[in-house]
Amino acid sequence: MSEDERFMKQALSLAKKAYENGDVPIGCVIVYEGKVIGRGYNRRNKDRTSLAHAEILAIRKASKAIGDWRLEKCRMYITLEPCQMCSGAILQSRIPEVVIGCMNPKAGCAGSVINLLDMPGFNHRVSVTKGICEEACSQLLKQFFAELRIQKKKEKEEGK
Amino acid sequence: MSEDERFMKQALSLAKKAYENGDVPIGCVIVYEGKVIGRGYNRRNKDRTSLAHAEILAIRKASKAIGDWRLEKCRMYITLEPCQMCSGAILQSRIPEVVIGCMNPKAGCAGSVINLLDMPGFNHRVSVTKGICEEACSQLLKQFFAELRIQKKKEKEEGK
Repeated sequence: MSEDERFMKQALSLAKKAYENGDVPIGCVIVYEGKVIGRGYNRRNKDRTSLAHAEILAIRKASKAIGDWRLEKCRMYITLEPCQMCSGAILQSRIPEVVIGCMNPKAGCAGSVINLLDMPGFNHRVSVTKGICEEACSQLLKQFFAELRIQKKKEKEEGK
Repeated sequence: MSEDERFMKQALSLAKKAYENGDVPIGCVIVYEGKVIGRGYNRRNKDRTSLAHAEILAIRKASKAIGDWRLEKCRMYITLEPCQMCSGAILQSRIPEVVIGCMNPKAGCAGSVINLLDMPGFNHRVSVTKGICEEACSQLLKQFFAELRIQKKKEKEEGK
């Protein structure tokens, strides 16, 4: 197993925790000098704030671990392509490398809708690796949304 | 004084708190049904995290006040055009209206470098009002950076 796969599997384990909470299963780890210094999983519904995306929580922990807002020697692993906010947080934290599990064609900002991570107008550009553990990352999300549809249908039928 | 000017002046007062801490002076308030439910000022250096932008802190407080990650009936006032991360957080929180003091030609994402707040590809678009208390917002930033340059020059001369 490559190093990238090893860390992405840790991000996937975190995504499963979000799943258990009923949140869209997305996980993230931040690695510094070969060690994980920040972990996060999506807690938007659980914490009732749009700020509780996996990447934001992991960045907060990594900054605390390093004692600096600059994460210039870190690599981020995320199971799903980041949104605008998280892409922005990656740029603001000066993270130089991001490894993505699967892409998000409808809302992703690392190449799908737009590529904020590599845009000439900004003062920081990020190197992106895609497709690490892609099938597992994608499958977990598909399973979550399939279950959600079944649940919603059931609730509708029961007149909730 | 218009309602917009009244709330922008509150955001400006918050920006001055950032100034006192040695952080770039940016302030933000979020208004719901005529009342301020979220306040924030830039604390990036003080808190040592890139996540401590004024808008992010104000969104966190507003979500807590409402008990929902959706801020669908809120209006945000910010002294400076938002960055990528904060524009993303505005979209993720579904804030429908943003009022901006002055623009940020080098890094702003509400029309300067890019306009993330009104982009066809995303599932949410924001109505933006610009130029409220523009001179005062801009002047505060200019004064901050002028002082910073003097301080840096002095430190250089003293061989620090």
